[in-house]
Amino acid sequence: MDRDFLTKLIKKTFALAKKGEGFVSPNPLVGAVIVKDKKVIATGYHKKAGLPHAEIEAMRKVKMPLEGAELYVNLEPCSHWGKTPPCVEEIIKAKFKKVVIATPDPNPQVRGKSIKKLIQAGIKVVVGILPEEAERLNEVFFKNMRKRLPFVVAKVAQSLDGKIALKSGDSKWITKEETRVFAKMLRDKYDAVLVGINTVIKDDPSLNGVKKEPYKVVIDPSLRIPLDCNLFHKSSKKIIIFASPTHNKKKLSYLKDKAEVVIVTKAKETGMFDLKEILKILYQKGIMSVFVEGGANTLGRFFDQAVVDKIYFFFAPKIIGGEESFTSVGGEGVRKINEAVEIKDWKFRRIKDDFLIIGYPKFKVKRKSKKQVKR
Amino acid sequence: MDRDFLTKLIKKTFALAKKGEGFVSPNPLVGAVIVKDKKVIATGYHKKAGLPHAEIEAMRKVKMPLEGAELYVNLEPCSHWGKTPPCVEEIIKAKFKKVVIATPDPNPQVRGKSIKKLIQAGIKVVVGILPEEAERLNEVFFKNMRKRLPFVVAKVAQSLDGKIALKSGDSKWITKEETRVFAKMLRDKYDAVLVGINTVIKDDPSLNGVKKEPYKVVIDPSLRIPLDCNLFHKSSKKIIIFASPTHNKKKLSYLKDKAEVVIVTKAKETGMFDLKEILKILYQKGIMSVFVEGGANTLGRFFDQAVVDKIYFFFAPKIIGGEESFTSVGGEGVRKINEAVEIKDWKFRRIKDDFLIIGYPKFKVKRKSKKQVKR
Repeated sequence: MDRDFLTKLIKKTFALAKKGEGFVSPNPLVGAVIVKDKKVIATGYHKKAGLPHAEIEAMRKVKMPLEGAELYVNLEPCSHWGKTPPCVEEIIKAKFKKVVIATPDPNPQVRGKSIKKLIQAGIKVVVGILPEEAERLNEVFFKNMRKRLPFVVAKVAQSLDGKIALKSGDSKWITKEETRVFAKMLRDKYDAVLVGINTVIKDDPSLNGVKKEPYKVVIDPSLRIPLDCNLFHKSSKKIIIFASPTHNKKKLSYLKDKAEVVIVTKAKETGMFDLKEILKILYQKGIMSVFVEGGANTLGRFFDQAVVDKIYFFFAPKIIGGEESFTSVGGEGVRKINEAVEIKDWKFRRIKDDFLIIGYPKFKVKRKSKKQVKR
Repeated sequence: MDRDFLTKLIKKTFALAKKGEGFVSPNPLVGAVIVKDKKVIATGYHKKAGLPHAEIEAMRKVKMPLEGAELYVNLEPCSHWGKTPPCVEEIIKAKFKKVVIATPDPNPQVRGKSIKKLIQAGIKVVVGILPEEAERLNEVFFKNMRKRLPFVVAKVAQSLDGKIALKSGDSKWITKEETRVFAKMLRDKYDAVLVGINTVIKDDPSLNGVKKEPYKVVIDPSLRIPLDCNLFHKSSKKIIIFASPTHNKKKLSYLKDKAEVVIVTKAKETGMFDLKEILKILYQKGIMSVFVEGGANTLGRFFDQAVVDKIYFFFAPKIIGGEESFTSVGGEGVRKINEAVEIKDWKFRRIKDDFLIIGYPKFKVKRKSKKQVKR
């Protein structure tokens, strides 16, 4: 069986895996293909956390004996008991002849365990077919497993000259409707949407997705969030608010049923929240990915603290101009041009008359606050 | 002879015409192809103002009699005596059978005159093959003829978040070397490069092209230009400086041999120079196109006054951030988001790891100053 055939089937597992996007968190996206006598006899994918894994989904569909069949899967099968039994045992029991795996599990504690078990059971194992694509497909899961932190995505919708709003506050709309729908659909992909308090006050967004409602997180140091904002009225899930220690008991009691207020202290040296601390707290709450939508100051702080994993920059082919207009990324910024954050592996995508740059920031200088360094 | 053949030959005239780019101003770019018995027997293009026109160039190369041949040309042949005799007479004399013209002359005073003469002489004339492309090819000339003003090109080199410099002034380099060479080559295409005085003071550029030295124009209201700047040392042509009325006789006398200082008054209502007035003066000096390279304030004013015909926005895939960093387009900006300047017919072009957006601004609201309205 040639490499082309393997590649084709692994690509099929990617396409299957993607069907679960937005619903499997905290699990990875997995697709599985079963082949017997060079023919695909079943496929499956992980549909939702708690439901069967992709391999099991596919195996259950096959009526004939699986002995001698081949299994293709984009991620190393699991070897542990979670909400479901370990897949690797089922694969061994079914007497597969061969298992083709795009990439091993990123979790250092389980990485390679299942592969070893399969080999010990006498199954032929091929690992490393399109491994980069397999990692990109599960970029959220890989970040989670490696860093025990949520995957952070920064989203911007700006004019060609980098503006997101006028001095007057007017910001509607910069991109076209198709683009805004596209951006809204991205919310479905991630567990939480995060904004700064200024965005809540100025734009009063609901921050919902198209198919599902993400967690909503607001960075609101002085607890200025208006009680009548859309976030409260158009959300069924609790809002998570990060605020500085406050004596405003009244506001806290008003918010009791509407939001979970998490008190964090600002780093003394920077006067800013330590975003890694906030991300850790979100991770502990089961939030595996955070979609940061702005505003300029919030995005600026995320870049200043080097905690962004991916960017979606939507551009409208327009010039807004204005010395006092707001630009997409504020904060402190870099100290020197040659310390600018490089965006790697970027892709251009046209969306009707707007366009989108998707890429991965690579932070050159780890711009830690002094407080972080001390730890 | 089918349409495909015509189109192919007209495209050939475009390619020939382009060879003269940067050297023919104030003339248009013209290429000519002569066909006899379905075979191309000669080609020519306009090489430089003062040298023969494309049609004559091609005709001179043919040794056999031209009677019965066909001429393909991207622009209506001239009918007037300029530095050279009118081409239309030569074409008639040569007894061409057919003349195929991509587009008529844009100059309202001569438009169609040659076509009429050719028809009257019994020559078959076809007009309107790829007319939009033909107009784009000579966009400078078309603007000149229609508005009696230079064609204005705005160039920006910015980060993904629209920044061109840090608060500290650091701006080197945002784009990669290949991109900067590409941008420098653009200077060869236009008659003059224009910058604001802040750019001269901060960056001290020489503003030269690769193959030729453009005119250099500086908007310098208070005549702050440093006498030891690179512009003076690395230019053989005189610099043109636009300044407000000044009593600084000393500075004026120092500048006497280095620059031509043109005194213009600011519009009372806006406190800004009337850029149309400046462009008119440049046009009268024979400058047919102006490449505006910044900085933020200068570009902002050009957009504020709706005098930009084309944009080149170079992007480095980087995030600079910073509330106080400089963005590419300053000035007043639009008053409402829905009045933003739309960029039409834009194209994306990748330059190694940077990218470029080329397009044509369409100004919705004619943002005239009150002074202009009064006239």
